[in-house]
Amino acid sequence: MSLKVPFKQVDVFTNKPFKGNPVAVVSCLDISEDEITTEQLQNIAIWTNISETTFLFKPKDPSHDYKLRIFAPTNELPFAGHPTVGSCKAFMEFTGAKKSKIYQECGVGVVELSIKDDEVISFEANQTIVEDFNKEHARSFENVLGVQTITEPKLLNVGPKWLVYLVDNSDIAYNTDPNYGNLASLCKENNYTGIILGGKKVNKENEYEIRAFAGGVNVDEDPVCGSGALSFIRYLNEVYKYSSTTPIKITQGGRVNRDGRIEALIKINAEGQPSYHVGGQAVTVVDGHIIL
Amino acid sequence: MSLKVPFKQVDVFTNKPFKGNPVAVVSCLDISEDEITTEQLQNIAIWTNISETTFLFKPKDPSHDYKLRIFAPTNELPFAGHPTVGSCKAFMEFTGAKKSKIYQECGVGVVELSIKDDEVISFEANQTIVEDFNKEHARSFENVLGVQTITEPKLLNVGPKWLVYLVDNSDIAYNTDPNYGNLASLCKENNYTGIILGGKKVNKENEYEIRAFAGGVNVDEDPVCGSGALSFIRYLNEVYKYSSTTPIKITQGGRVNRDGRIEALIKINAEGQPSYHVGGQAVTVVDGHIIL
Repeated sequence: MSLKVPFKQVDVFTNKPFKGNPVAVVSCLDISEDEITTEQLQNIAIWTNISETTFLFKPKDPSHDYKLRIFAPTNELPFAGHPTVGSCKAFMEFTGAKKSKIYQECGVGVVELSIKDDEVISFEANQTIVEDFNKEHARSFENVLGVQTITEPKLLNVGPKWLVYLVDNSDIAYNTDPNYGNLASLCKENNYTGIILGGKKVNKENEYEIRAFAGGVNVDEDPVCGSGALSFIRYLNEVYKYSSTTPIKITQGGRVNRDGRIEALIKINAEGQPSYHVGGQAVTVVDGHIIL
Repeated sequence: MSLKVPFKQVDVFTNKPFKGNPVAVVSCLDISEDEITTEQLQNIAIWTNISETTFLFKPKDPSHDYKLRIFAPTNELPFAGHPTVGSCKAFMEFTGAKKSKIYQECGVGVVELSIKDDEVISFEANQTIVEDFNKEHARSFENVLGVQTITEPKLLNVGPKWLVYLVDNSDIAYNTDPNYGNLASLCKENNYTGIILGGKKVNKENEYEIRAFAGGVNVDEDPVCGSGALSFIRYLNEVYKYSSTTPIKITQGGRVNRDGRIEALIKINAEGQPSYHVGGQAVTVVDGHIIL
C-alpha cells in the first residue's frame, strides 16, 4: 500500500531560490515510524539524489518538536547542518508552528534551534572536537589546495570530519582551484569528509568567505555547508580565543553559482565558556506531496 | 519577481515509486519562454541534481502537443529517452489530455510518442547511427568490463553515443563488475557516453537484461536508460536482422536496487524498413509546485 505524505525541497542559507544548498524534507509527522523501514528511507534518499533527504517523525519525548532522520544517498547521518536548518523551516511550514526555540531529536541527541525574526534559523553545536594533525600531513593537503595557510591547520570533528585551513584573505579562498582528484584520494585515505578553506574579507571585521571541498564523500565542492561553517568558527576560536560573544558572517558558494549566507555566532557565557551557533535563512522551492 | 508553476518528479520505466529512473518536470505551459532564461533553466537542473530536469513549453507548431527542453546538470540535451517518457506522463497529468499519440518538439525535431492502454508510453527513435570501431579499441573496453562479447561490438549514436556489447546471457550481464575508473577514462578519451552491456535471458525469447555504464558523463551506472535500450535494440537488429515486427522486453537496474522494465519494439513496415520504439510505464512520485 502506498502512502502520500507532505514533501518540500528547501533551499538553505539563502532567501533566493536556487542560490543555497537544497534538502528534501518528507513529513512523516502523521504516520508512525513503524510504517516505513530504514531501507525504504535510504532508497528514497538514493532516488532524490541530493546531498541529504530528511524525514520528520513525531518526537520520542513530547517536550521536543520532532525527531529527524537524515540520509545521504550513501548512508544515514547522525547530524548534518544545512539539512537541520532546512528541516526546521519545513517543520514550521508543515505545522504552522511559530516559535523562537525548536528542539530536534536526531542521532547526536537533542539539537536546540533558535528562530530569530521568523527568518534566521540557527542550531547550537553538540560536538566540536579539535584535533592536531602532523605538519608533514598538513603539507600534502596544502599541496593539493595549491595555497598557503597562515595558521596551523586543525582537524575538526563535528560529526563530519573537516580539515580547516585559513588563508590570508577571502580573494585567495575564492580563487583557489584545488586538484580535485588528488584531494579526494587524500581525504579517502584518511577518512576525512574534506577541507574547509576560509579567508577574511579585507577591511571587514569578522566576515569570511569559505569553500568546502568534500572529496571524501565524492563531492568536489559543497555549495553552502553548515557543518563546514561550524568547523570553521570553532577553528577561529582556537586561533583567536575570543573573550566576548562574536558574530561571524560567512559567504559561500559563489564559485558554483550560489550565493550562500551563513550567520554564525561564537557565544561566550558568564563563565567564559564558548558555544557555537550556525544559522541562516531558508526558502521552500518545491512544495507538494510524495508517494512513499 | 518569482513565478510559481506546477512541478512533478516522475519515476520512469516502472509503476512502483523509487524503482525506476527519475526525471524532474517543470510545467512552463502557462508562461512564455521569454519569461525565463536558459541560464535559469540550467541553474534549476544543477540544483535538482538528478540526471535530467525538463521544461514543458507551449509548442511552436500548434498541431504538436508541447516543446520540451531537457537539461542535465552539465548542459542542455537535444534528446533523452527516460526524460521524454516521464515528461509525456507529466504533460498528460498536468493537462488532463487522454490521447494515443503525442508530438513532442525538442532538439532533434519532432518526436512521436504512442500511449497504449493509458499506461505504456513509447517514443519512436529519430536517429540511430551504427558505427564500426576497430578491434583493438573494442578489446580495451572489453578489458575494463572483464567479460567477453559474443558478437562484434558497435558504436551507436542515438544522440548519446553508446558502445554496445552483447554477452552470452543475462546472468553474465547482471553480474558484471567493471573497473569504473578505467571505464570512465576510456569513455572520456573517446567522447563516448558509456557502454551498454546486454545478455539474453535463458529459455526466454527476446527478453534481455541490460546495464548502462555511463562513465563518460560521470555516472557509474545509469539505473534504467532509454537511449541505452534504444541503442541495444538497434544493435540487436544489426546482428539478427529481424524480418518481422519484434517486441523486445528489457529489464534493468537490479544491481542498483531498481526494477526497471522497458518495452521495446523493432517494427518492420510493409517495405521491410525497420523503426525503433522504446517505452514503459511511469509513475508520479512528487507532485506540487516549484518557485522559479
